[in-house]
Amino acid sequence: MKTYDVTLDISAELPVWPGDGGILFERIEKIEDGSAANVSRLSMGVHTGTHVDAPYHFIKNGSTAESLSLKTLVGRAYVIHIKDDVGLITPEVLEAAGIPPRTRRVLIRTRNSKLWAKGYKPFTEDYVALDKAAAEYLVKRGVRLVGVDYLSVAPFHDTTPTHVALLKAGTIIVEGLNLSQVSQGRYNFFCLPLKLVGSDGAPARAILVGV
Amino acid sequence: MKTYDVTLDISAELPVWPGDGGILFERIEKIEDGSAANVSRLSMGVHTGTHVDAPYHFIKNGSTAESLSLKTLVGRAYVIHIKDDVGLITPEVLEAAGIPPRTRRVLIRTRNSKLWAKGYKPFTEDYVALDKAAAEYLVKRGVRLVGVDYLSVAPFHDTTPTHVALLKAGTIIVEGLNLSQVSQGRYNFFCLPLKLVGSDGAPARAILVGV
Repeated sequence: MKTYDVTLDISAELPVWPGDGGILFERIEKIEDGSAANVSRLSMGVHTGTHVDAPYHFIKNGSTAESLSLKTLVGRAYVIHIKDDVGLITPEVLEAAGIPPRTRRVLIRTRNSKLWAKGYKPFTEDYVALDKAAAEYLVKRGVRLVGVDYLSVAPFHDTTPTHVALLKAGTIIVEGLNLSQVSQGRYNFFCLPLKLVGSDGAPARAILVGV
Repeated sequence: MKTYDVTLDISAELPVWPGDGGILFERIEKIEDGSAANVSRLSMGVHTGTHVDAPYHFIKNGSTAESLSLKTLVGRAYVIHIKDDVGLITPEVLEAAGIPPRTRRVLIRTRNSKLWAKGYKPFTEDYVALDKAAAEYLVKRGVRLVGVDYLSVAPFHDTTPTHVALLKAGTIIVEGLNLSQVSQGRYNFFCLPLKLVGSDGAPARAILVGV
């Protein structure tokens, strides 16, 4: 069974959402300075790199990251490929993608994944994302988790409607997946976010295992 | 298949290793203040809560967190229970615990797990840990991953020998597991740490799935 690590490296090169602040990584104890061990601290936005959104991200009084269901975060998933000339994912695009019936977790590979394959670049506003109708389409089909390959499921200049359509329905959003090495088809997906109490999101490690 | 979340909650109540600094969680954008979304930042030591140690934690030029093998972090594991009157885990204690032959991942439940079950308390130096000989015993048996239920695999006043014995052998150390709900026996273990480039350790989400 082949395992794919679909997680972005967390490093100073990783682009971050404008306004979220940077990734600060600091070694506070160093063996070369006489400490027994190397010990580091990390400071970053909770929506950095590969991460999940909790309902509280866009919904006042929404549930928070520690309560996201492991039963949804782990299980059978279907990866779809969207052609490189698609800039906005609409219901029509999803309808043409051939998502099998009863699919509960959909991961969407677009041209965004090429950005990760090429190495990290500055943040781009021109990424492929889902419009509100596409989010509603997935909810109506019974999808409980949707994963995307840039840092937001929604277009840069219109973030609220897509997020709210998914989060209101309890659909978990996984953002910042690197799907560049993954073919279309069925996998077992394991997305394990940090158990951050009270948080609007949480960084995660995510893997796909061939079935 | 029953799933056990053996991860500690990350919150202000979680005890942290002395000198690592606290857990700072801050909401930097708030819906109630007119922002489109709630957005938070997190600052903490990389050895906070449930986490992995990389060789670089105790070994100059050792490998770092992003390169820990997923093939080791994920797979069949055996949970052993150590009686509450044991304060130090020695080879004799492990020998008596009945670890099955060819076990590659061992998770050790001690009285430490009661601390998590009772709710978080201040950091205690008086936790149950492995001496150097116990670490060497596990390495000799071919164990590739060892998990413990307090914040260090080694006694508080003697951290280096146990860590070095394991990390030098390439054995992955998982610390800060809450095993209070888990019976002795076989499970599938999924420990997915953040992919922190160049780090001596990484916080993780860890689950056990019944087999």
